[in-house]
Amino acid sequence: MRMRHKPWAKDKLAAYPQFVVGNPIEYKGNWKKAFGNDNPIHIEVGTGKGRFITEMAKANPSINYIGIELSERVIVAALDRLIEAEVTNLKLINFNAENLEDCFAKGDVDQIYLNFSDPWPKTRHEKRRLTYKTFLARYERILVDGGEIHFKTDNRSLFEYSLRSFSEYGLLLTNVSLDLHNSDFEGNIMTEYEEKFSKMGHPIYRSEVKYQNMK
Amino acid sequence: MRMRHKPWAKDKLAAYPQFVVGNPIEYKGNWKKAFGNDNPIHIEVGTGKGRFITEMAKANPSINYIGIELSERVIVAALDRLIEAEVTNLKLINFNAENLEDCFAKGDVDQIYLNFSDPWPKTRHEKRRLTYKTFLARYERILVDGGEIHFKTDNRSLFEYSLRSFSEYGLLLTNVSLDLHNSDFEGNIMTEYEEKFSKMGHPIYRSEVKYQNMK
Repeated sequence: MRMRHKPWAKDKLAAYPQFVVGNPIEYKGNWKKAFGNDNPIHIEVGTGKGRFITEMAKANPSINYIGIELSERVIVAALDRLIEAEVTNLKLINFNAENLEDCFAKGDVDQIYLNFSDPWPKTRHEKRRLTYKTFLARYERILVDGGEIHFKTDNRSLFEYSLRSFSEYGLLLTNVSLDLHNSDFEGNIMTEYEEKFSKMGHPIYRSEVKYQNMK
Repeated sequence: MRMRHKPWAKDKLAAYPQFVVGNPIEYKGNWKKAFGNDNPIHIEVGTGKGRFITEMAKANPSINYIGIELSERVIVAALDRLIEAEVTNLKLINFNAENLEDCFAKGDVDQIYLNFSDPWPKTRHEKRRLTYKTFLARYERILVDGGEIHFKTDNRSLFEYSLRSFSEYGLLLTNVSLDLHNSDFEGNIMTEYEEKFSKMGHPIYRSEVKYQNMK
């Protein structure tokens, strides 16, 4: 995503500690404390400008949400949205998804959302795809037993790749839609990208997969 | 498929014993003998008018093919095609796929093709879908270890259902295309339906799944 450099972004993120967790490592194994309740925790990896996760938080007040985004220039847009929404069940983390395990212990997370992740189309970049096996292993190490990944994208190749990757990892495919906007799925909340690409006529692909007791 | 009644169909099938195996049960466990060689055996369940299997047989002379079709009024069209093609590596069977195990023993079949199978869209007809778990179990009982199913359809709901069904059964998804005719898959042979529906603009969905050692 091309955005102008925002040197003030870091300061702005630091100015809202109630929304942006500045040092997420200290909550590892103890996220209930950050939210002050025992509700389930759903995270979005690559939360972008935050439309999806903010709308989810508004729609589901008994679930706690955490949006994780590497780019501080992008996550400030999510912060703006969160400031306006004034929800108390959403936190943002400016962190690299490769280091998820630094922030979360096994069982900290009930569900993971991946929305319109970077497709990294070149084979030599396969390892960077958020559905590559090393990421699936990271997710397993922070999810509850039987935890789920809910994934959507308009990128056909990424979706095909991800279905294979899920299967090879041994995940159980519990739901799949090959044209989400013409399916009977209810309550879909669109991301910024989703609205843009579906208007261009791209079908939106969506899947839910579940970690099984494999070992 | 609506076709005029063909009272002569049975007689015609019987007139070509070199192409139509009249009593397939007697070859159970011994199909190599029917073909007179040790080549791998691929079957198509629901072979229809036989365009796919006949073209496959022409393209791959070192593989033996068997087309299975319940409707004798339909399979005579496949027979006509086979008479014209004059290949020696294709046989037809007029048989119900529910009784596959009467014709084939474990390991008789190396690969199964399902092409544009009846979607049976009503939930109460789920058991009739050729990718329902009882069919997947039948296939396992006649395939070699590590045998594969190659499945294609233009029916989105059937494909979504089948991906879930494969996953629940524990099959390994090794290849998936959500728009076969715009993919890099080479050597695709179109069925009659495939040509018709792809001309109407339907994407063709295709998957390859593999039986793993699960027990």
